[in-house]
Amino acid sequence: VTNTREPRRPQEAPRRYVLTVTCPDTTGIVAAVTGFIASHGGWVLEAAQHGDLTTGRFFQRIVILAESMPFGPEEFKVRFTEVARKFELDWELHDTEVPRRVVVLVSREDHCLADLLHRWRSGDLQCDIPLVVSNHPQLRPLVEGYGIEFRHVPFVSGRKADAFPEVAALFDAARGDVMVLARFMQILPADICQRYAGRIINIHHSFLPSFAGARPYHQAFARGVKLIGATCHYVTADLDAGPIIEQDTLRIDHADSVEELLRLGRDIERSVLARGLRWHLEDRVLVNGNRTVVFG
Amino acid sequence: VTNTREPRRPQEAPRRYVLTVTCPDTTGIVAAVTGFIASHGGWVLEAAQHGDLTTGRFFQRIVILAESMPFGPEEFKVRFTEVARKFELDWELHDTEVPRRVVVLVSREDHCLADLLHRWRSGDLQCDIPLVVSNHPQLRPLVEGYGIEFRHVPFVSGRKADAFPEVAALFDAARGDVMVLARFMQILPADICQRYAGRIINIHHSFLPSFAGARPYHQAFARGVKLIGATCHYVTADLDAGPIIEQDTLRIDHADSVEELLRLGRDIERSVLARGLRWHLEDRVLVNGNRTVVFG
Amino acid sequence: VTNTREPRRPQEAPRRYVLTVTCPDTTGIVAAVTGFIASHGGWVLEAAQHGDLTTGRFFQRIVILAESMPFGPEEFKVRFTEVARKFELDWELHDTEVPRRVVVLVSREDHCLADLLHRWRSGDLQCDIPLVVSNHPQLRPLVEGYGIEFRHVPFVSGRKADAFPEVAALFDAARGDVMVLARFMQILPADICQRYAGRIINIHHSFLPSFAGARPYHQAFARGVKLIGATCHYVTADLDAGPIIEQDTLRIDHADSVEELLRLGRDIERSVLARGLRWHLEDRVLVNGNRTVVFG
Amino acid sequence: VTNTREPRRPQEAPRRYVLTVTCPDTTGIVAAVTGFIASHGGWVLEAAQHGDLTTGRFFQRIVILAESMPFGPEEFKVRFTEVARKFELDWELHDTEVPRRVVVLVSREDHCLADLLHRWRSGDLQCDIPLVVSNHPQLRPLVEGYGIEFRHVPFVSGRKADAFPEVAALFDAARGDVMVLARFMQILPADICQRYAGRIINIHHSFLPSFAGARPYHQAFARGVKLIGATCHYVTADLDAGPIIEQDTLRIDHADSVEELLRLGRDIERSVLARGLRWHLEDRVLVNGNRTVVFG
Repeated sequence: VTNTREPRRPQEAPRRYVLTVTCPDTTGIVAAVTGFIASHGGWVLEAAQHGDLTTGRFFQRIVILAESMPFGPEEFKVRFTEVARKFELDWELHDTEVPRRVVVLVSREDHCLADLLHRWRSGDLQCDIPLVVSNHPQLRPLVEGYGIEFRHVPFVSGRKADAFPEVAALFDAARGDVMVLARFMQILPADICQRYAGRIINIHHSFLPSFAGARPYHQAFARGVKLIGATCHYVTADLDAGPIIEQDTLRIDHADSVEELLRLGRDIERSVLARGLRWHLEDRVLVNGNRTVVFG
Repeated sequence: VTNTREPRRPQEAPRRYVLTVTCPDTTGIVAAVTGFIASHGGWVLEAAQHGDLTTGRFFQRIVILAESMPFGPEEFKVRFTEVARKFELDWELHDTEVPRRVVVLVSREDHCLADLLHRWRSGDLQCDIPLVVSNHPQLRPLVEGYGIEFRHVPFVSGRKADAFPEVAALFDAARGDVMVLARFMQILPADICQRYAGRIINIHHSFLPSFAGARPYHQAFARGVKLIGATCHYVTADLDAGPIIEQDTLRIDHADSVEELLRLGRDIERSVLARGLRWHLEDRVLVNGNRTVVFG
Repeated sequence: VTNTREPRRPQEAPRRYVLTVTCPDTTGIVAAVTGFIASHGGWVLEAAQHGDLTTGRFFQRIVILAESMPFGPEEFKVRFTEVARKFELDWELHDTEVPRRVVVLVSREDHCLADLLHRWRSGDLQCDIPLVVSNHPQLRPLVEGYGIEFRHVPFVSGRKADAFPEVAALFDAARGDVMVLARFMQILPADICQRYAGRIINIHHSFLPSFAGARPYHQAFARGVKLIGATCHYVTADLDAGPIIEQDTLRIDHADSVEELLRLGRDIERSVLARGLRWHLEDRVLVNGNRTVVFG
Repeated sequence: VTNTREPRRPQEAPRRYVLTVTCPDTTGIVAAVTGFIASHGGWVLEAAQHGDLTTGRFFQRIVILAESMPFGPEEFKVRFTEVARKFELDWELHDTEVPRRVVVLVSREDHCLADLLHRWRSGDLQCDIPLVVSNHPQLRPLVEGYGIEFRHVPFVSGRKADAFPEVAALFDAARGDVMVLARFMQILPADICQRYAGRIINIHHSFLPSFAGARPYHQAFARGVKLIGATCHYVTADLDAGPIIEQDTLRIDHADSVEELLRLGRDIERSVLARGLRWHLEDRVLVNGNRTVVFG
């Protein structure tokens, strides 16, 4: 089986530290944060910020060339804590040498999964994928063809509540950082949503808030909309109502049957999910209440 | 005042008959209709058709070069009645020499109105605009600057029910064919919706069915969507739920305030309304239950 | 190896005859063609037509439900010849039970190929893929994983002229109908372009006519364009100048390096190629000089 | 004449200083610039930056709330000079209380001009428009209807060289900051391009670099492209080859005649020009060789 070759690492990408910060907005934050970096000779590759007028929160993302700093990520964290305390910063430092671990949950539809796996192997998604979990056995060969572990957890009607803890345990055992619902088609219980808040990413096959819930393409067809869409969002206990990461739409017309919508929609689902996951992995997405800041 | 010059008539557009047909789908309809046209030597400039599998209805639009027919529109209608009877056709023949009469209803926002008037004068919209009605006086100069009659019908709080009959009477007196709600911001009563069914066109400033009703940009901001949209639809007694003619969306991001959404949305509202109205005037839009067939 | 399962056949698609017609435009063509079909009780599922004012040519595509006709495709052809002679029709009848045979030519980049193979297996592309040919050995496992024959034809520098006849012979031996250059990166000699005119489909990684030739993303970066694009076109002896089937563009910004353009471009290349090939397989694309008619 | 009412000033927009900076990239720039602002208690509303790897240049835009600073723009400039010297900054400080003065050059087509004037009066474009210059008299009423001076400068065939200095003199007399070619259709001589480098904005009616020069829609039709476009760029002595500010594309199909392309193109021309000009007026566009940085 030949898909097991290692994913490409893009040669142009040197090791970086990605610092993300949120705090109550005030003067001097950027000066303090960039002053800290500059005082150690750090080279800033990218920086973006946003002051949200409705919540009064400040958001920042800074990408630093690792080799420009005189110390490693652990000492960075220790030293930065002082700056952070002064401005009440919520912050995270992500070292690109430590790829996040993505666990994918799927059902029987393979278009999103196949797309993610291809991107992962092509080096477009900077992550490890240690595990794929499914409530059906069909996609095992696709997954194992990439050298990735596949676990089938049956969801027996009437006893689904038993299956979710098993999924969570597999996620924990795989030391998962991100859980991706790549057309998983099962509603996660509230306790799992809360335990992994901000770490579960779903693709919904409509332009939310339109057509939440089941069979969105059938709903879209019945309403006679002229565009269909897809939405990538963080999962919360509120069905299809979590913070939106990315959306897109696609023009259709009166001649498109529901089956055509299903087919056309697959393309937009996979690209919206891939962009949303990519941005999450690159620490571009910061949650702001039920909205997101996405640094381009 | 110099805007009163006549709207341009595009020189490339010769007189045409536009025949639109709907009926229960069966074999032989197209052969019969085109056979009728061909038997008189008629030259077909455009033709499009659609068989709807869910409703079993057939839809067709044929554009015929007027000068290729040996008789005028009245005789066309008489002779075509026989074909129509056989296939139970609902049909209409529109002579492009007889432009439709469009009455525009506005409130205080001028972006959609200004756009329609500019397109009309540029010859992009093949129609007459005999009248603009508003519940506010502010847009009178803009309208009269184009040599078009402006009527102010005050909508007094608590006595709005009195105003609607006056609007309808003005529409009738102006021999209106189409009523365009160009950000009119008042909910039409059910009896008016029914009396002019299929002839009232609204622009709603959201991607329906999301954010129906009031303040859709505020709703969109609060939900944190990544695209905003606009919807052009026929008005029915069901608020914002009539058959959709055209929609479009526009990318926004976290940095856009509600005010920015309002500003950006104006561009998409005016272009979606202009396309929807244009297609209606060109007989491209056929209603199919609560959906539309739009022949491109 | 489990990818070898048969491609899905969409259950909703019954056997159809797709009739495509081009001829000098005149009155009565549609009446004659649809009259022929109706006289045998044929059920028309889709029909579209176009009269081109610049070339005076008429184009038509009609999809007929096979089971509604009292005879098979061979007798259809015999009987239709009489109609065709009268109007000097160039015409083709394609039976959807006889899928076209697609031979894919690739180099080392796998994104277009992987996408086509996934769509083929999902039943989105109605064709057979008997063979993939490459000037490099790397993609053999991907291809063979789908149960498809892979042939490596080395293109030795200075002796490339020897390789092309071998590719053509493989195409002929596989009884290929369509040759798809899925990022093949080799310029076909004029004789091959002519021998398979209208049957070779290329994806070029720019919005043609901008950035024809080599390294289009580098050209786009240097010019500072704000959108990149991709173009699917029929191959002619004129490099990157054949009739365009489909194009699309994607927004980029100043922060995108050439490497980012390459990455982002892959998504648009694969979707533009897939649409173009799909439309070709569905007989939606008719060549009109150096332009195409594409029936939606 | 009622269009002469003052353009709206958006109530939500307080006075701001917009600081734009470019310099050779090095460590500590952002810390120094934001440190300067913070040391005076300045409140940063927006900030964006870009380090260009190909040119080694750094670009930054910072928007500061004016009332948060303890001194006015003049003292700001004096004090900032010291920071600027250390890092070899090219910089500008724009006070939003001092709107830029835009002079528009037009020919006979009014769609871009009418759009700019409507946006200006709606408060969407923060600028003054003291003057419109045209080589034809037709658009005088439209311009004067907005209370703006209109000057007709005839361009006599064979003696066009005489007209350009007159245009430049009018621009200077109007104390113009920006010259907008809103479908002016005349090629500016090199000396004017150089004198006002970075201050002349053109809208070209194609997706450059495709179809530079005359009659781009005719060129697009002949080539059979599936999308048309428009490009807003700074004018240089090289025809249609200056730094691109903004572009967009629009889907067309085989049924669209050249006249349809002209009509459809007008919408995209006016929106692309409006966006490009708006971004220029908001100091979002920084020139980087023959490319631009556009801060969103």
